[in-house]
Amino acid sequence: MKELYLEKSAQALAVLQELDVDLWVLLGRETGDICDPALRLVLPINVMGTSAFLFSRTGRQVAIVRAQDVAGVEATGIFPEVVGYPEDWGALVRQVIEEIAPRQIALNYDLDDPLLDGVTYGMVKRLELALEGSVYRDRIVSGRDVVKAVRGRKTTAEIALMQTNVAFVHRFCGEVTPRLLPGVTERQVFDWCRTYMAQHSLTGSWDEHACPLVHAGIRAKHGMVTPGDNPIQPGDAFHLSWGVRQNGYAIDCQRTWYVPNPEDWQDGICIVPDEVQNAFDTIVNSIDAARAAMRPGIAGWEIDKIARDSVMAAGYPNYARGSGHTVGRALHDGGIALAPKGIRYGAMTELPLDAGFVSTLELFLNTSRGVVAVEEMVQVTPDGGVFLAPAQRELWIAGGDR
Amino acid sequence: MKELYLEKSAQALAVLQELDVDLWVLLGRETGDICDPALRLVLPINVMGTSAFLFSRTGRQVAIVRAQDVAGVEATGIFPEVVGYPEDWGALVRQVIEEIAPRQIALNYDLDDPLLDGVTYGMVKRLELALEGSVYRDRIVSGRDVVKAVRGRKTTAEIALMQTNVAFVHRFCGEVTPRLLPGVTERQVFDWCRTYMAQHSLTGSWDEHACPLVHAGIRAKHGMVTPGDNPIQPGDAFHLSWGVRQNGYAIDCQRTWYVPNPEDWQDGICIVPDEVQNAFDTIVNSIDAARAAMRPGIAGWEIDKIARDSVMAAGYPNYARGSGHTVGRALHDGGIALAPKGIRYGAMTELPLDAGFVSTLELFLNTSRGVVAVEEMVQVTPDGGVFLAPAQRELWIAGGDR
Repeated sequence: MKELYLEKSAQALAVLQELDVDLWVLLGRETGDICDPALRLVLPINVMGTSAFLFSRTGRQVAIVRAQDVAGVEATGIFPEVVGYPEDWGALVRQVIEEIAPRQIALNYDLDDPLLDGVTYGMVKRLELALEGSVYRDRIVSGRDVVKAVRGRKTTAEIALMQTNVAFVHRFCGEVTPRLLPGVTERQVFDWCRTYMAQHSLTGSWDEHACPLVHAGIRAKHGMVTPGDNPIQPGDAFHLSWGVRQNGYAIDCQRTWYVPNPEDWQDGICIVPDEVQNAFDTIVNSIDAARAAMRPGIAGWEIDKIARDSVMAAGYPNYARGSGHTVGRALHDGGIALAPKGIRYGAMTELPLDAGFVSTLELFLNTSRGVVAVEEMVQVTPDGGVFLAPAQRELWIAGGDR
Repeated sequence: MKELYLEKSAQALAVLQELDVDLWVLLGRETGDICDPALRLVLPINVMGTSAFLFSRTGRQVAIVRAQDVAGVEATGIFPEVVGYPEDWGALVRQVIEEIAPRQIALNYDLDDPLLDGVTYGMVKRLELALEGSVYRDRIVSGRDVVKAVRGRKTTAEIALMQTNVAFVHRFCGEVTPRLLPGVTERQVFDWCRTYMAQHSLTGSWDEHACPLVHAGIRAKHGMVTPGDNPIQPGDAFHLSWGVRQNGYAIDCQRTWYVPNPEDWQDGICIVPDEVQNAFDTIVNSIDAARAAMRPGIAGWEIDKIARDSVMAAGYPNYARGSGHTVGRALHDGGIALAPKGIRYGAMTELPLDAGFVSTLELFLNTSRGVVAVEEMVQVTPDGGVFLAPAQRELWIAGGDR
């Protein structure tokens, strides 16, 4: 994994040159208890003392940590310069910043985006205090664009880790299909998933008590809660929303099955009710339209609009949720949001996609037989988005073929 | 575990009355990725959307969360009021704050203490923006005293969880003593501890790669690094620094053994070299002196001074580290620090101890045979500190009795 961190560090230095930002500073202390998510991209361990991690446009990369943390940070081999202080963090930080003499000091704060907003209020005040009376005191700016790029642009190694995770979920979906029989409860499927995760050393992409979400038919309860005793019934749409995490990377996936009635089978073919089939086809078409448009430079709200318009053109109502979110170290990896302009996501919907970003496309339609939903992960390329892994192109038949 | 969270919530409401603070607000979003450590005291799950958790002096306790998070927060049963918003978090927060009409809005930020500094810079700005133009905009204050009290004053249930953890470490120390024989390496002892933790579903109180720290004799390398191939040798002081975590609570413990030479045994009694025995006795005496003084109202620096003076009176040099730290949900649980006044811990050394606080007392002496160190956990009571679990009162003999 060391290579991954070196790769992300090199990327950070290159991004500073590209954006013409002189200095990016990550701050933290007791990072085992509260940590800037951006620090997780460039440091594989925790630090206890008050620390600053500096990346300069000219290629300097310095860790300023308490004396007791020096050996641990050095042992990672990520930071070429590791400087320890016995008492006065502020004086040492000021000294190094004066050496670098930056025009801007980018700190990780943002109003709209949780993943870009990693610095605590007290640590900003600490840095301001350390720089009091110097010209650098007023050069603190938001590092949003830096984090957005470093976090968002996935390296080949990052994509590979995520693909490994998707493979686990896809394999499970194949194996579970024959077991999705009438009478099986949402909770049983949840338990099968939990066992599978334990067997393969996976954790959930979100809180374990609600990962995965399992919805059988119109009776299913929605929200971030543990699936209940609702049994699968013939005629249901059956929906699984699941993400797993391994080696620090998360994925997000939704799949839908149809649970046939005996009379749905004709000559060995399951005839899915129109309502369910139309919803599924609408989703697949919408995903395809949005995916094709996912090129660098386009804004999140534009992709959302393509997906949304496609759904509405097929006769479905507008929907309150967005159409996708980035994914990576975090389930909701920030930077951009595929959602309508507005107060909820703020600037995140108006920022452009970069090459290498990975975003979900997720569409969710209510039918009288339950939710039909599909979620795919797509990587942005100059030629449009590419699926990270095979997409669901057909509605699956619960119980499998006859 | 629900009772624990209800207990901490009730404690928070009582603390607001005691401190005459009208409103305490915890802010967060995507708390699975970055979370105010104080929120972990009162909410057992993560939320995704921008959220505010309000505790008022008059007993109101409200969660303001995005619509999708409502079901999950309600299911915990901790917050009597859970209010969802579809789009505009700020407007709803402002409305509830105007209803409460607080004289102060305590937010979790602090310059000195990582555990009290849980709010991100962007979220403070979000709240300020939501309150723009109202009188409440300028009533934001540091919630340091609130967090210090709620976090620091351990309930009976919290103490019991920590004692369970200590019991695991103590049992291991007893079992491992006969196996601490010359030739066994630091890394082997580390691996035994890791296996034991896996067997008992424990995680480390700090980063797994360096938990526990194991030091055999003067050759040991120090710092937060993985123990190496250094073998135990006769005549060594052998030092284990270990903490384990379960059910959300951490503990911290240090123990020292002497590794006898054959000639150290006289009539079935191991005669420990004076240098090692004196160091150990000095530490025990110092811990006892400091512990006895740990009453509500005394400041951290005063306890540190008692420990430090006791060590120096025995002829040892002054030391750079502090003499103890609080422990609880976090390994370094904040609020106060048992350390000298100065820039490193800032106000934390000058704040008074409260009844119910749990702090380590840890003393560490270098000898020509390696480090001798003991760390105990002590709960503050009106009659002085009490050990959370049996303390090490004798130097242990590696390999066990003859």
